[in-house]
Amino acid sequence: MRRRNLVLFLLMAFFSLAATGAFAQDADAPTVETAMEAISKNTVAIDTVWVMVTAFLVMWMQAGFALVETGLTRAKNAVNICMKNLLDFSFGSIAFLVIGFGLMFGGPSDSSVSALSEYIGLDGIWFLSGEDNSPATGDDYVGVYGPINWTGVPLHAKFFFQMVFAATAATIVSGAMAERTRFASYMVYSVFITALIYPISGHWIWGGGWLADMGFWDFAGSTVVHSVGGWLALVGAFVLGPRKGKFDADGNPRAIPGHNLVLVTLGVFILWLGWFGFNPGSTMGTADTNLIALITVNTNTAAAIAAVAALFTAKLMFGKWEATMALNGALAGLVAITCPCAWVSVESSLIIGAIAGVLVVLSVIGIERFLRIDDPVGAISVHGVCGAWGTLALGLFSNGSGDASPTPGLFNGGGSEQLINQAIGVASVFGWCIVTGAICFYGIKAVMGLRVSEVEEAEGLDFGEHGNEAYHGLQFVDH
Amino acid sequence: MRRRNLVLFLLMAFFSLAATGAFAQDADAPTVETAMEAISKNTVAIDTVWVMVTAFLVMWMQAGFALVETGLTRAKNAVNICMKNLLDFSFGSIAFLVIGFGLMFGGPSDSSVSALSEYIGLDGIWFLSGEDNSPATGDDYVGVYGPINWTGVPLHAKFFFQMVFAATAATIVSGAMAERTRFASYMVYSVFITALIYPISGHWIWGGGWLADMGFWDFAGSTVVHSVGGWLALVGAFVLGPRKGKFDADGNPRAIPGHNLVLVTLGVFILWLGWFGFNPGSTMGTADTNLIALITVNTNTAAAIAAVAALFTAKLMFGKWEATMALNGALAGLVAITCPCAWVSVESSLIIGAIAGVLVVLSVIGIERFLRIDDPVGAISVHGVCGAWGTLALGLFSNGSGDASPTPGLFNGGGSEQLINQAIGVASVFGWCIVTGAICFYGIKAVMGLRVSEVEEAEGLDFGEHGNEAYHGLQFVDH
Amino acid sequence: MRRRNLVLFLLMAFFSLAATGAFAQDADAPTVETAMEAISKNTVAIDTVWVMVTAFLVMWMQAGFALVETGLTRAKNAVNICMKNLLDFSFGSIAFLVIGFGLMFGGPSDSSVSALSEYIGLDGIWFLSGEDNSPATGDDYVGVYGPINWTGVPLHAKFFFQMVFAATAATIVSGAMAERTRFASYMVYSVFITALIYPISGHWIWGGGWLADMGFWDFAGSTVVHSVGGWLALVGAFVLGPRKGKFDADGNPRAIPGHNLVLVTLGVFILWLGWFGFNPGSTMGTADTNLIALITVNTNTAAAIAAVAALFTAKLMFGKWEATMALNGALAGLVAITCPCAWVSVESSLIIGAIAGVLVVLSVIGIERFLRIDDPVGAISVHGVCGAWGTLALGLFSNGSGDASPTPGLFNGGGSEQLINQAIGVASVFGWCIVTGAICFYGIKAVMGLRVSEVEEAEGLDFGEHGNEAYHGLQFVDH
Repeated sequence: MRRRNLVLFLLMAFFSLAATGAFAQDADAPTVETAMEAISKNTVAIDTVWVMVTAFLVMWMQAGFALVETGLTRAKNAVNICMKNLLDFSFGSIAFLVIGFGLMFGGPSDSSVSALSEYIGLDGIWFLSGEDNSPATGDDYVGVYGPINWTGVPLHAKFFFQMVFAATAATIVSGAMAERTRFASYMVYSVFITALIYPISGHWIWGGGWLADMGFWDFAGSTVVHSVGGWLALVGAFVLGPRKGKFDADGNPRAIPGHNLVLVTLGVFILWLGWFGFNPGSTMGTADTNLIALITVNTNTAAAIAAVAALFTAKLMFGKWEATMALNGALAGLVAITCPCAWVSVESSLIIGAIAGVLVVLSVIGIERFLRIDDPVGAISVHGVCGAWGTLALGLFSNGSGDASPTPGLFNGGGSEQLINQAIGVASVFGWCIVTGAICFYGIKAVMGLRVSEVEEAEGLDFGEHGNEAYHGLQFVDH
Repeated sequence: MRRRNLVLFLLMAFFSLAATGAFAQDADAPTVETAMEAISKNTVAIDTVWVMVTAFLVMWMQAGFALVETGLTRAKNAVNICMKNLLDFSFGSIAFLVIGFGLMFGGPSDSSVSALSEYIGLDGIWFLSGEDNSPATGDDYVGVYGPINWTGVPLHAKFFFQMVFAATAATIVSGAMAERTRFASYMVYSVFITALIYPISGHWIWGGGWLADMGFWDFAGSTVVHSVGGWLALVGAFVLGPRKGKFDADGNPRAIPGHNLVLVTLGVFILWLGWFGFNPGSTMGTADTNLIALITVNTNTAAAIAAVAALFTAKLMFGKWEATMALNGALAGLVAITCPCAWVSVESSLIIGAIAGVLVVLSVIGIERFLRIDDPVGAISVHGVCGAWGTLALGLFSNGSGDASPTPGLFNGGGSEQLINQAIGVASVFGWCIVTGAICFYGIKAVMGLRVSEVEEAEGLDFGEHGNEAYHGLQFVDH
Repeated sequence: MRRRNLVLFLLMAFFSLAATGAFAQDADAPTVETAMEAISKNTVAIDTVWVMVTAFLVMWMQAGFALVETGLTRAKNAVNICMKNLLDFSFGSIAFLVIGFGLMFGGPSDSSVSALSEYIGLDGIWFLSGEDNSPATGDDYVGVYGPINWTGVPLHAKFFFQMVFAATAATIVSGAMAERTRFASYMVYSVFITALIYPISGHWIWGGGWLADMGFWDFAGSTVVHSVGGWLALVGAFVLGPRKGKFDADGNPRAIPGHNLVLVTLGVFILWLGWFGFNPGSTMGTADTNLIALITVNTNTAAAIAAVAALFTAKLMFGKWEATMALNGALAGLVAITCPCAWVSVESSLIIGAIAGVLVVLSVIGIERFLRIDDPVGAISVHGVCGAWGTLALGLFSNGSGDASPTPGLFNGGGSEQLINQAIGVASVFGWCIVTGAICFYGIKAVMGLRVSEVEEAEGLDFGEHGNEAYHGLQFVDH
């Protein structure tokens, strides 16, 4: 009996082992748990690759801004514009590392500590020095950069992606202030924006601050990045005053054509490409691949229709297929779709882009003719005005559910709730930029001067500031 | 005895549970099934990242075409060329969204419905509106875009990748028609190609149409994209006639040098880079990483040897290391390897590329001297002729098995079967482009005019069409 | 009793089956093993995507070098510079395919065979023809390319990534030899470096050779790539002699300004972008995502601070915000951080970059003024000197553990061990390049001549070598 039971025991032991495949397994055999760990590691790897590559594309936009701004201004200031774009990225990289990222995304770890945390990051401010166990996300996250714990990538990846965004906001300003701003003053300004102005309003929206809590949404930064750049450009251009010769004695604007529209075109293509980092990359992960693909198509569609709309608007107004308007039109569409790109249909993108294309032409003309502000490249219109339009457009076209997303827009049966939230956000950021921009630019003006001398402006900043000629041996007429 | 059996039962129950790890599992514990789901999600994510990033690179080729074409023509038409490249991409983006993608990849869901589906997409034509459960693939796919159900990425990712290809075909034409085509007419044309001409012949090959059924293969589009662009360029340049001054009284061609070969070089580097999206990206997934890597090396090798071959061919013919030939040589190699890149060895790529490099030089000269067609940038030779060569080369060098791939090529012991199939495809697409191109260009000519006035051609299209100067303040002599 | 036991048997059989989920499984049900296989496939896919995309970025650096060098030299030689950059990449692609990769990474499969394998690859030298079962890694790897079996990607992916690095080393030289080197001679040289010089010293370090065995570390190639390029540039510029007019009768240097600083700026942005392929991509996989992110931030930080440091150094020395120094400063920071980027903190990157920025200014001036060597673009200083500095800096700032990584640096309590190893590597590669460079350049000089005629140099190489004008119709003064 015992023997029979023993045989039975051995048979069944064999049976159960065979059923589990244990015979084939040695002690190190993989279990479902080890598989799940390996899967998670792969997921972090995919997400990191996506975030890094899209961040590289956003960094590349610096070259696009440099070319657009250089091409739309005069040859005698080309080196100066290039240097401003190189150095604001350089200073921005360091300033956002030293303090900007912390002010934007730093906790307090215990959010009950301070109501001040609605307005500014308080913990881990310096040099990414706060506690952080990224790529852990959500409830598994332990650290002080809680507002950005929704993306499962390493801390340095989060930083780098956000840093190139900060540098974008900074560089927008250089165009509006081109051809007359002291180089040293510009460098000081660029540190201010990436260290303080951008991170603080950014904290309100992407850092878990009061605008986020209120229900304001901005997917990839029509307001956080572009309007901030655009409104600071407005203040800067206003404080500086127009270039000599821009307005005649009666205050009527005079065209000062740029010196290389091919560079402008190349710059626009670079920016268009870079925007595929900017918008789809703002998913900061690949959990929702449908969303990545939709955002890409929305981004491209808005840019395309906006270029067309601006081209035809200019044709109606001026009788010619004017190139700079079409080029700025493409950028206007890109800026406008940046906020709503994740929560609108492709058809809505067509409308949002088309309106941006018309708007940018009217705005460029209006700012020059009626506000009499001299913005050599149209940065205020493209980034400020169209950034505001895109942010508001979310309130009109949103197809979000309101659950960790915007509520449905006015044209999607959602009433005016989201639109009002968006308007409050737009107005708040406008106010913040006007006030801090005024402090910054008037402060620099008082302390070190903001504008070059009349002689230097006439001769060009390339020689005066840098001792360089952009195009040695080449004669440009009428400069 | 019962007790003993009970003990035995409990022991064995424990044993079998332990073997399955069930003791360690709670109710939410992952199973192999949840693991497999997570793995599939990762796979879709990787594939989507790959498709998006390579699509971005293909989009970037637009900048390359703009620079190559601008640099190879005269300064007085630089803005016009840039605008054409910007706007054909813009219009193309929209036209392919509205109808092109559907005509190319739309079913009918039930393919027995219509023999017409061999020639054109019939279902889900408008605005990607057809049923679709992407990223499901193969048998799991439910929807109307069956011909592209082999890639496991979201529908919008499929669309975007294919759209940038369509826009490439469109933009090729602008170079051959440069310096004399009305801007409005060009815009109309570009809508036609991306809405109708390209998607329909594309349907024959990549949309499950009659050429695909016959056994014609074109991996990344030597014929689908490049020859279509090249043959339409041929028709366009023929209908337009040559630029004033291109041929002397005896019909001998006169060189009209481009105004900026540095831009051309930059453009070629951009295109070379973009081709790493075009060819390896055409895997539209990462299931076969060996293939991705091989395609990349084949692409690069063919381009490299073609640049060298064109350089030496030109040196033999003209006695100088002529730059534009080397630059077009690189492009010729890229175009030629585009069709066979997935099914030939690296050594075959060397041969295919080398022949393309020689061929493009002879073709550029022949088209000008014997056909007396004025193609300012060599687009017909690079994209039409070398696209045809590369497509035929597959019939010579194919190492495919014939199982969901081409049959072995003539030089791989496969006889002439694949070569004949390739020749039929090349000829059919040539015919399609000549006929539809002629309808399109003669139609536009009759309705709205295709060519600018002689005065405008002499003064340059930049001023006449756009009211712009590309290089304000700069004096170009002898234009 | 038998029956009772039979019931028991059936019950327990059921129990054990239920516990393993076998009842729910059909024959094709996934097991943990199939899951692990699918996970590995995903990992290879992610790694391949990362390696390919970063390799594309490194390839893109070719365009950056072309623009930097073209912009810093005179218009009459612009086509020549562009052609050199196009053709050294083309020849390099082929030479590294034919023999370079094998010499660098080829085994012998059995390393006991030959002490010679410390100095040169011996197996699978021609056309990647050796046995190889990539993407298998480590102990699973079977093949002759053992030194690069640590990365789990296909062989062609390994080749392509390494090939674009080899081409980078080659192209560095063209800048220092600009405006006076025969085109044919340059092509011969570029084959030599990618076929022989670069792969052999590369074998010592990345191919498991004697420097690797000794404990010399160079993560992404400050020495392997940049110093090799820089020191060969030094020899080339020395053998060639200075451009006519560079030094006055007393041997004092005269400035020969470049003709387009906008192109230089664009080139630097391209290079900066490309470096995100160069350094983070040198992980050649995604196993350590924290490392990828850290390397990216280190790379960017060093470049940023170096641009700032060079700008201020030049301002102190010349009183102006001189642009070419800031631009070369950014490159100097990138070169310097390339070796240590994986094993130093972000704070150390700030110091390493800042010193590189100062150093490059002093070096550019010193080489011109004291060595009286004419390096039109500063390639020797940027790549040679700052490559050496960055390599040594690892010995100072390393935070490696010494376990499959460098030992701690001098400032991290590690003593001078790593610093001495780094110094030996720097010196050895310097010696190798001086000797082989001298053989190569003096050999070419003797056999076919290295320098163009005085007349051709005066008229420009564009016309003499290529029969082209870079800017037809444009008048450059004083060239």
